[in-house]
Amino acid sequence: MKLAKVIGNVVSTIKTPSHQNKKLMVVIPVDASGNKIADAMVAIDHYQAGIGDYVLILEEGGSARDIIGDPHGAFDAVIAGIVDRL
Amino acid sequence: MKLAKVIGNVVSTIKTPSHQNKKLMVVIPVDASGNKIADAMVAIDHYQAGIGDYVLILEEGGSARDIIGDPHGAFDAVIAGIVDRL
Amino acid sequence: MKLAKVIGNVVSTIKTPSHQNKKLMVVIPVDASGNKIADAMVAIDHYQAGIGDYVLILEEGGSARDIIGDPHGAFDAVIAGIVDRL
Amino acid sequence: MKLAKVIGNVVSTIKTPSHQNKKLMVVIPVDASGNKIADAMVAIDHYQAGIGDYVLILEEGGSARDIIGDPHGAFDAVIAGIVDRL
Amino acid sequence: MKLAKVIGNVVSTIKTPSHQNKKLMVVIPVDASGNKIADAMVAIDHYQAGIGDYVLILEEGGSARDIIGDPHGAFDAVIAGIVDRL
Repeated sequence: MKLAKVIGNVVSTIKTPSHQNKKLMVVIPVDASGNKIADAMVAIDHYQAGIGDYVLILEEGGSARDIIGDPHGAFDAVIAGIVDRL
Repeated sequence: MKLAKVIGNVVSTIKTPSHQNKKLMVVIPVDASGNKIADAMVAIDHYQAGIGDYVLILEEGGSARDIIGDPHGAFDAVIAGIVDRL
Repeated sequence: MKLAKVIGNVVSTIKTPSHQNKKLMVVIPVDASGNKIADAMVAIDHYQAGIGDYVLILEEGGSARDIIGDPHGAFDAVIAGIVDRL
Repeated sequence: MKLAKVIGNVVSTIKTPSHQNKKLMVVIPVDASGNKIADAMVAIDHYQAGIGDYVLILEEGGSARDIIGDPHGAFDAVIAGIVDRL
Repeated sequence: MKLAKVIGNVVSTIKTPSHQNKKLMVVIPVDASGNKIADAMVAIDHYQAGIGDYVLILEEGGSARDIIGDPHGAFDAVIAGIVDRL
């Protein structure tokens, strides 16, 4: 998993059915001090993460489908939890 | 997932059967401002993305097969949606 | 797998059910001499690794679920063992 | 997927049974103009790619097993097609 | 797959059961000329590779389990063969 900071969200009208009514957040991977360590990526949110929140990103299809609760969904990265503090 | 910009397509006569009649697009990963953050990659298109469009790239075999609707296809990256605006 | 050094842990109250009562450790990948070679990542612990320990990180969902013993858990990286010495 | 250029092949006598009688090609990922963008990797060939050819590399186990036609083979990267022209 | 050179092994007393009696080798990815192209990683050995040998590293769980012959083992990288010469 990766630590990341939520910086925005993605608006997409034309998208795959399993993404309907899901929030797609833009996040930036950070180190344990909150410093950016990689470029932006997009993760499905399941925990109402807000901009500025530090989150845990899980990058594995099976895990993402487990968290979202959609065994046939098209997911490769998901917000698996919100970090209390860095 | 990754944000990316479509910059071209790939023409291949000799290819695996599950790629027949599919569009293979060359895309460049970008950040939330549209700046290039990684080198070109190739993704299967399912949403009639055009050159210059910003798209969401999903990189996981199971998800790609779900989106394309071919449970035995040979896919590792797919355009999962078109971004309305960055 | 990767060699890594444990540098801390992550506290998260809002998280996916399969992470309840699991320790999430922040680790830094290192080379065979203990020098940092990549930025921090987060792995589930199953072996009571402590801060400063050198560990083996396994990054594959199926393997992580095997080690944790939860076939439906949401895991993509796990501490698979503790290295005796570098 | 990645665009890549074939630069050589690997000769290995001691290898896993599913690699017997397969061609292992050394390829270099390139951008849409043919410029090298990453270091060499090795992919199983199924389309008689020759040195100098531009090819599409697919990096996913399930897809590779589909293309090779061996559902239990040990493959993580395969040449999925030959690019007509860059 | 990756070409790599074996540079050492890992000694671990506390480890996951499927790693018992397996050799964990430290390898360095190299290009076709033997030059280092990435930092050290750890792979399970199944072919009695020795230090200094050039090997093929396969990074996919299903393939690794196929080569080792343990369908429930916790493996993400395996030495799939020994390269005769670079």
